[in-house]
Amino acid sequence: MDQKHIINADSARGSIKLLMTPGPTEVSPRVLKALSSPLVHHYYSGFIELFDDTINKLKRVYQTKNDVVILQGEGVLALEASVRSILSKGDRLLLLNSGPFGKSFGDYAKGAEIDEIACPQNEAIDVEEVKRKLDEREYRALTVVHCETPAGTMNDVKSICNEAKKRGVITIVDAVSSLGGVDIKPQSSGIDLCITASQKCLSCPPSLSMISVSDDAWEAMERVGLRGSYLSILDWRDAWDKKSFPYTPFISEIYALNESLNAILEEGLQNVFRRHKRVADCIRKGIKNLGLELWPESESIASDTVTAIKSPPKDVVKKMENYGILIAGSVGELKGKVIRIGHMGYSAQLANCFATMEALKRSLE
Amino acid sequence: MDQKHIINADSARGSIKLLMTPGPTEVSPRVLKALSSPLVHHYYSGFIELFDDTINKLKRVYQTKNDVVILQGEGVLALEASVRSILSKGDRLLLLNSGPFGKSFGDYAKGAEIDEIACPQNEAIDVEEVKRKLDEREYRALTVVHCETPAGTMNDVKSICNEAKKRGVITIVDAVSSLGGVDIKPQSSGIDLCITASQKCLSCPPSLSMISVSDDAWEAMERVGLRGSYLSILDWRDAWDKKSFPYTPFISEIYALNESLNAILEEGLQNVFRRHKRVADCIRKGIKNLGLELWPESESIASDTVTAIKSPPKDVVKKMENYGILIAGSVGELKGKVIRIGHMGYSAQLANCFATMEALKRSLE
Amino acid sequence: MDQKHIINADSARGSIKLLMTPGPTEVSPRVLKALSSPLVHHYYSGFIELFDDTINKLKRVYQTKNDVVILQGEGVLALEASVRSILSKGDRLLLLNSGPFGKSFGDYAKGAEIDEIACPQNEAIDVEEVKRKLDEREYRALTVVHCETPAGTMNDVKSICNEAKKRGVITIVDAVSSLGGVDIKPQSSGIDLCITASQKCLSCPPSLSMISVSDDAWEAMERVGLRGSYLSILDWRDAWDKKSFPYTPFISEIYALNESLNAILEEGLQNVFRRHKRVADCIRKGIKNLGLELWPESESIASDTVTAIKSPPKDVVKKMENYGILIAGSVGELKGKVIRIGHMGYSAQLANCFATMEALKRSLE
Amino acid sequence: MDQKHIINADSARGSIKLLMTPGPTEVSPRVLKALSSPLVHHYYSGFIELFDDTINKLKRVYQTKNDVVILQGEGVLALEASVRSILSKGDRLLLLNSGPFGKSFGDYAKGAEIDEIACPQNEAIDVEEVKRKLDEREYRALTVVHCETPAGTMNDVKSICNEAKKRGVITIVDAVSSLGGVDIKPQSSGIDLCITASQKCLSCPPSLSMISVSDDAWEAMERVGLRGSYLSILDWRDAWDKKSFPYTPFISEIYALNESLNAILEEGLQNVFRRHKRVADCIRKGIKNLGLELWPESESIASDTVTAIKSPPKDVVKKMENYGILIAGSVGELKGKVIRIGHMGYSAQLANCFATMEALKRSLE
Repeated sequence: MDQKHIINADSARGSIKLLMTPGPTEVSPRVLKALSSPLVHHYYSGFIELFDDTINKLKRVYQTKNDVVILQGEGVLALEASVRSILSKGDRLLLLNSGPFGKSFGDYAKGAEIDEIACPQNEAIDVEEVKRKLDEREYRALTVVHCETPAGTMNDVKSICNEAKKRGVITIVDAVSSLGGVDIKPQSSGIDLCITASQKCLSCPPSLSMISVSDDAWEAMERVGLRGSYLSILDWRDAWDKKSFPYTPFISEIYALNESLNAILEEGLQNVFRRHKRVADCIRKGIKNLGLELWPESESIASDTVTAIKSPPKDVVKKMENYGILIAGSVGELKGKVIRIGHMGYSAQLANCFATMEALKRSLE
Repeated sequence: MDQKHIINADSARGSIKLLMTPGPTEVSPRVLKALSSPLVHHYYSGFIELFDDTINKLKRVYQTKNDVVILQGEGVLALEASVRSILSKGDRLLLLNSGPFGKSFGDYAKGAEIDEIACPQNEAIDVEEVKRKLDEREYRALTVVHCETPAGTMNDVKSICNEAKKRGVITIVDAVSSLGGVDIKPQSSGIDLCITASQKCLSCPPSLSMISVSDDAWEAMERVGLRGSYLSILDWRDAWDKKSFPYTPFISEIYALNESLNAILEEGLQNVFRRHKRVADCIRKGIKNLGLELWPESESIASDTVTAIKSPPKDVVKKMENYGILIAGSVGELKGKVIRIGHMGYSAQLANCFATMEALKRSLE
Repeated sequence: MDQKHIINADSARGSIKLLMTPGPTEVSPRVLKALSSPLVHHYYSGFIELFDDTINKLKRVYQTKNDVVILQGEGVLALEASVRSILSKGDRLLLLNSGPFGKSFGDYAKGAEIDEIACPQNEAIDVEEVKRKLDEREYRALTVVHCETPAGTMNDVKSICNEAKKRGVITIVDAVSSLGGVDIKPQSSGIDLCITASQKCLSCPPSLSMISVSDDAWEAMERVGLRGSYLSILDWRDAWDKKSFPYTPFISEIYALNESLNAILEEGLQNVFRRHKRVADCIRKGIKNLGLELWPESESIASDTVTAIKSPPKDVVKKMENYGILIAGSVGELKGKVIRIGHMGYSAQLANCFATMEALKRSLE
Repeated sequence: MDQKHIINADSARGSIKLLMTPGPTEVSPRVLKALSSPLVHHYYSGFIELFDDTINKLKRVYQTKNDVVILQGEGVLALEASVRSILSKGDRLLLLNSGPFGKSFGDYAKGAEIDEIACPQNEAIDVEEVKRKLDEREYRALTVVHCETPAGTMNDVKSICNEAKKRGVITIVDAVSSLGGVDIKPQSSGIDLCITASQKCLSCPPSLSMISVSDDAWEAMERVGLRGSYLSILDWRDAWDKKSFPYTPFISEIYALNESLNAILEEGLQNVFRRHKRVADCIRKGIKNLGLELWPESESIASDTVTAIKSPPKDVVKKMENYGILIAGSVGELKGKVIRIGHMGYSAQLANCFATMEALKRSLE
């Protein structure tokens, strides 16, 4: 009765006990503990050692020998930086538009000539169409989203990018909501720039984005020469390499990322992918058992990290809150049309799937 | 003997017990606890309430009724965004260069015509010279650094900006290492864009930058119309206003910022400023007692948040580590020429000053 | 592959994500944050204020105006201290034995004359039998367990204790696994010493036990005069009252307890009891739906805080671990005969029930 | 202005930044993180492994091959349990009274015949007098305090206990505020029961006490046969050995203790002792430089873990709070006569000594 309403981190979470949202996901207690460790100055030897160790572990999780560069900003920073670092005015871009994130690559490529291949938001990009287009014209770069988070769909980036690479096209892939949850090997998949972010399958707080960069991509960036900007991947690389940080590193977030990578590597990458697959199967089976329909046209293009559900009953997201479980609506054109359950990173646990499905069942009653 | 070397957040801090570095500073236990709170989805009501509350508290700490916009990136993001959002190609900029940060404003103003007033790094910009220059020519904008962190010097931004404002010039101030520690009132000081960052006097982890924006500045930005970019302040404003986050908010860092603002407001702004002043006096007195020389030409321009010391004996930063205390060298031209003691935010405590001065004394022996 | 096995708090929890054990329970993130706050000296004004506040909140959760005394030890400390503080050599005790904890009261009453009323471990004590016994003879004290944790059964302590009080008998109740989860009002229930512990419905770490003490009980204790011992409730009372702590208070655990009480009072006591009831119903229904049998002879004596299941299939506790959920076997005679699901305090959430029931279903397959 | 007074863990610490009190001490961030880890059930394999590991590390810090038993209660629990477990009615005890803790052993030895050797509280027990007494009569046990925390004095327990052992006397040593900070090897020092507690040199929260137990002591306890009580060391041993915990282990506190032992072993025991010595020297030198007088009659008996100062100026403890530093008054007869600075465990850092000495200097002005 005499309790006052205090606004703080606890009130922000309110009565929520479980995030089944497609980013941010639950962050594990051990990562939260790393996050809350006392800071240190970025020139101190202990931090430099940790930073280098983090990059090495990132490469292992990326399954690449290419460089991996951390950018200190939300995922969109890496998307924008990639496009601007690769494309000069007049360059031709083949943009694969399978949803809002696919489309948004175009916003960053202002001076470029853009050809677009689009598909409905519940479908995936047709690889054959991409091949035809690539044969028709010469492109500087191709952009594609691996997992369209708003729709829960996956594009066949391996086929697409390998076709593009064969033709000398620089491939830029938004793997923000898949890398670390789905087995994607940038190098053998023909991906020059493979982008992810901290708050999805890596289960860290939103704050960092990362890009694996092939030698071809570095060469292309040197040619364009974008420098002196928060958007310059070359600048970021040099900053980290020389440890002459023009920008103060996000100390706490690097702590968290390092610990999250530890957890992934301890579990084993293949085990992590299997866990995501098992949970995704459980969620999709559950959805169908409840008489609901998956949004993706075919289950073969449904993501193992997020599930979109068609024509959800009114207020179901709100009703789920009564059980302490947060799921999400969608964005853009899909707003109001689909609801989404995230099952990536630390949230991707069978027990969470069980709780979510039963809560959903009761919320539909 | 059988202990293995493990790399993690604890090893990164190593044997360091106290950061007296000019950012990052010590982050208080209560802010670290807020940081480590379980995350929540950004569309959840509890988070939206917290975010709005944070903005309101930011305005109180900024002592302004202007808008304050959070950008999700290190301080340089806000510096670059400000310049690019205000200046179009061909606009004329009066750049006040009192050190590396003052100078770096020019990097972001590529298409602009730049007139520069420079001073030696141990001096402050001459206000009279600024007035003369402002009278000579019409400028679109003026950039100036309040506290040059590498040199521990302060510019008289109030006089400078009021002179500029009188002449219709948009004023952009880097108050990254002063706001929240030194009494600066953007509105009565004639500052259109007043920039700070989370890891200095606000004693949060590096991750966020903030800008207070005057109506004149908004108007200028609308005219320039920078949009569709991580560098667009207009985009950031709209994102937060509509809560249609194109970028996932940095949930954990907002938790931390909110709690840090609570601590500042509970202590009282004027008390906070007095504490910084008292600690700075103690540090400067201590330095002189040890027979060392302050780097700033005159104590009247020495900052209350960071103290730069001239011609430091070799290895003194390293020797201080033996006492668990981190101080810093400097950057750019001052590298090797000065060492710096940060005393801002949560680190600015008399007890920390006492420990640092005695450790310094012994390190000099 | 190169990950070494490190033993620490994280390895201790291993792959467990959810405790559905009958103590310790899950401790909420906000209580864990309180627990991890920097310590302070017990004579500091801030701590003394917090301690007094904790006692006041304890009384509200106890729903009593009697004194509540904290003892710094596991629940058994309070059980032993109560018996030894009340009974002198030769005093007569009526011991109600409904299971191992009921029986163990006798261990502490060495010099006393003990009459025992026992019931099978799946039944509750017969109130009529108690009345008969009370009428037959004069007793100094009566001991009874409210919820027998190993069996998941509840005794009708209200009827029992009121009958005893009418006859001037001091009543000692072990409410360790019920207080704060089930509505028990010590005063109107005729309970002189009502004992609980931190790690059950209060969802704190194991460390503290508490006793509400009636005026009659104080008088009885003064008569016995047990002093100069960790077992002396009189000593504990005086220590806290005079704040002349002979024993250093458990600072961190008091932090945690205070925060846990905050959470309970914010939710509202009646809401907390309803939540426990709803979850218990869900668990019991689930158990029966799976074709399993409840251990208590009748559902009317089944506890709302822990459910014991008869004749569990082999290895089911182990199999549940595969889903990251810990449930428990039992102790004493029930070892190997029943398994138990705890659903008390912070663990008592419907979503946890959903996850547990589905995991149990799959573990039985 | 609109901030309300909230009572919680943060308010309890208030404006205090540094504990220089003789227990609790500062607990390191890494130990606080361990403390705040999610709990697990005590029968889970991960916890049992951690518990055994903790005992092994305790033995290394104790520098003993004897058993070390953890008791779940404040240090006084172990003191009382030791006396009651060793002495039967009529046994003769030689009690060395060098201060309140030395004296309090007698409270627990109610039925025993007690001979006391006392010394003024600023002196240490005279070994020759002990020898004389031991030669005069046969004793079952001898009790002595290693470091009298209220007085900052040390007894020569090695000489005393070896003399006693030679004569077949069981030696019980209160090393609560020395073990882990001062080099004491129970076995070669002739100590049968060596008692310490978590909140002193081990820098954990108050909650646990520990006893190393020699074979002779076990034999003596078996003879006495104290069982069925929170005070029975035999019961505690059996509980841990059989892992049939009658008492729920203090999960969180075991997490913390394990991590604290890690930190000590990583630093190296001899380095830890040297650090305590160096800090103690610095404190004592500082005290004398300020014109204050040490309470112990001779510096040779001054403890390396706590320094007591004679005739302190009024309100100096309070004035120190203005600098965020807590020191302590004393207890018993010394209340008001001495103030004490604790420098044990994690608090024992030179930088803390520097801060404390300068703050003390200013508080005296």
